[in-house]
Amino acid sequence: MTEKRRGKATITEVAKLAGVSTSTAGRVLGDYGYASEEIRLKVRRSAERLGYRPNQIARSMITGRTRTIGVVAGDIQSPFYAGIMRGISDVARQAGFGVILTNSDESAELESEAVKLLLGKQVDGLIVAPSEMGDAAHLRRAVRDGIPVVQVDRVVKGLKAASVTIDNRAAARQAVAMLLAAGHRRVGILAELEHRSRSEIRELMAQVRSGNTDVRAMFPTWPRFLGYLDAHEEAGIPVDFDLVARVGTYSSAQARRLVAELLSGPSRPSALFTADGLMTASAVAAVADLGLSIPGELSIIGFDDLDWMSFYGRGITAVAQPLTEIGETAARLMLEMLGGGRKALRDLVLPAALNLRGSVEAPPR
Amino acid sequence: MTEKRRGKATITEVAKLAGVSTSTAGRVLGDYGYASEEIRLKVRRSAERLGYRPNQIARSMITGRTRTIGVVAGDIQSPFYAGIMRGISDVARQAGFGVILTNSDESAELESEAVKLLLGKQVDGLIVAPSEMGDAAHLRRAVRDGIPVVQVDRVVKGLKAASVTIDNRAAARQAVAMLLAAGHRRVGILAELEHRSRSEIRELMAQVRSGNTDVRAMFPTWPRFLGYLDAHEEAGIPVDFDLVARVGTYSSAQARRLVAELLSGPSRPSALFTADGLMTASAVAAVADLGLSIPGELSIIGFDDLDWMSFYGRGITAVAQPLTEIGETAARLMLEMLGGGRKALRDLVLPAALNLRGSVEAPPR
Repeated sequence: MTEKRRGKATITEVAKLAGVSTSTAGRVLGDYGYASEEIRLKVRRSAERLGYRPNQIARSMITGRTRTIGVVAGDIQSPFYAGIMRGISDVARQAGFGVILTNSDESAELESEAVKLLLGKQVDGLIVAPSEMGDAAHLRRAVRDGIPVVQVDRVVKGLKAASVTIDNRAAARQAVAMLLAAGHRRVGILAELEHRSRSEIRELMAQVRSGNTDVRAMFPTWPRFLGYLDAHEEAGIPVDFDLVARVGTYSSAQARRLVAELLSGPSRPSALFTADGLMTASAVAAVADLGLSIPGELSIIGFDDLDWMSFYGRGITAVAQPLTEIGETAARLMLEMLGGGRKALRDLVLPAALNLRGSVEAPPR
Repeated sequence: MTEKRRGKATITEVAKLAGVSTSTAGRVLGDYGYASEEIRLKVRRSAERLGYRPNQIARSMITGRTRTIGVVAGDIQSPFYAGIMRGISDVARQAGFGVILTNSDESAELESEAVKLLLGKQVDGLIVAPSEMGDAAHLRRAVRDGIPVVQVDRVVKGLKAASVTIDNRAAARQAVAMLLAAGHRRVGILAELEHRSRSEIRELMAQVRSGNTDVRAMFPTWPRFLGYLDAHEEAGIPVDFDLVARVGTYSSAQARRLVAELLSGPSRPSALFTADGLMTASAVAAVADLGLSIPGELSIIGFDDLDWMSFYGRGITAVAQPLTEIGETAARLMLEMLGGGRKALRDLVLPAALNLRGSVEAPPR
């Protein structure tokens, strides 16, 4: 806990230059406790002359770097973040870093509070799954203040931070292409997507294809939906928008109802692509409610691979994100940034796997 | 951030009484930075005379309360802790408290590191699922230093801390009693239990029944096993120890193998009680591997209710712990302790529910 940055003066040196005690210097630079205006000035000038930013001094005064990484998860009740945390913790621990975790509930406001809390706890850097990819003023401020930030799962537009993501669009395209290749012509999608009109979706698709829109700065369900459209286009099969079941809020009950409607209606799909683990569980539950069989009456591929998918019926074919690896990679990038070794920010995109099981077969005649 | 406890002296008063500067008093009581032995003595004596415990002064010196609760989970990859965290966060947030979470991986050493990390981050109190119920020196030290501690899921023997648990033994007894009442005479149990001989188990049972052993200070699988024994005794059905499948390490693959052996052997059980969610998943997977049907060829009741259990086959009957409520209650106890309103430590035991689904029927003839 007393690690010093090489080639940098200690708080004692700053205090000496200012002609005050070490604890006074610490108080001034840490911005707590009493010190006269005159002393404040002296200490700050000494700190400047020694080339230190006040915040770093204050932080390093007592224990050097705090050797702590702060993490903001979108939803710690999701196995997704649990897997990522596993990876972060393992790498951090090996390097002698502690990890403290907070939760944003996918709310920009709570995320901003969480970042404030973590910075108040003097973490050395932040690993964040940004809940809002546009403004994110709190993250921009943190970056401006010199806090290293690594983003996971998605990125804030134009934020000067590193990132670890997967290619959601390509993985979804591959999954849907497999359903189409099995002979399905009516492939539905169940996804948490805020409503957009067909013309808005066409426009979005055009923007993405022109390279003007970074899909990593979208909530991951969107690139997955784009992958669904891609696969149809590649196969020359028009998308029937009646097969697109959108879920406004992230609710299992609502998703279950939507699937029941989709499967009971006149234009029933013969296959379904579910865009995350909760959607897959909801779809499978709805199918069970209706007494239909998988894959006999409905083929399914899900995004995100959960434990029960390996033993449910003949198994559910699923896209597996490399969760632990995402976490490990994010932690390594963070350590790299804290070490100061590499200057360029890195954006890493990891591959996802399609785990083949027994939930896909040719459509019934 | 400058909240003061009513009716207590400030650090300034301690310093004044000791005849030293406030920052020197803070340094001594916070245990950092230099101070001569003579000064240390003076400051500590003043603190004692004013009735303060040193750490609290040091902590309140800089920013008063930090309005943060630190949580140590046993395994954040488990839905169990995720549910508890949800409850803690919701209550804490409403009271204007932030929550930071760390993980012990059920290791006493890592738990000790986590506690150190959280106290270094100046949390106001700790909510912990103790990974080790005997020594736990780091928790005893925290309590001695005046840090309020609330334990969840299990308790450290004789620790002066509050607790929120469920009655694991009663809930397991109820579940196994239901299997016995359905007519099963050969009810197996799959549980993560370190090995003990039958005579050791008999001795443990005798100790528990004599009231000399607090089952809350055991890893929860043990009281669940005791509940399994209770139910047999109440029904007057002898326990066949060949039906007790122990899992030394917490591994799904090993549990799956054990169940496969149990079900393929000559003395196959007609029903199975699985003592946690991972054990239930492993058992169900093993049953699927063997092509057996639930409940036709094997009845099952699991401890812990996971999402897939509601839609797997005819549904898996399961004991549901009130996870969110455990977390909410723990947070409320913590706020109560921090508020200083109630002096007595509270040990709350919440009821669990048995969610009846379609995995139990009479044994095949």
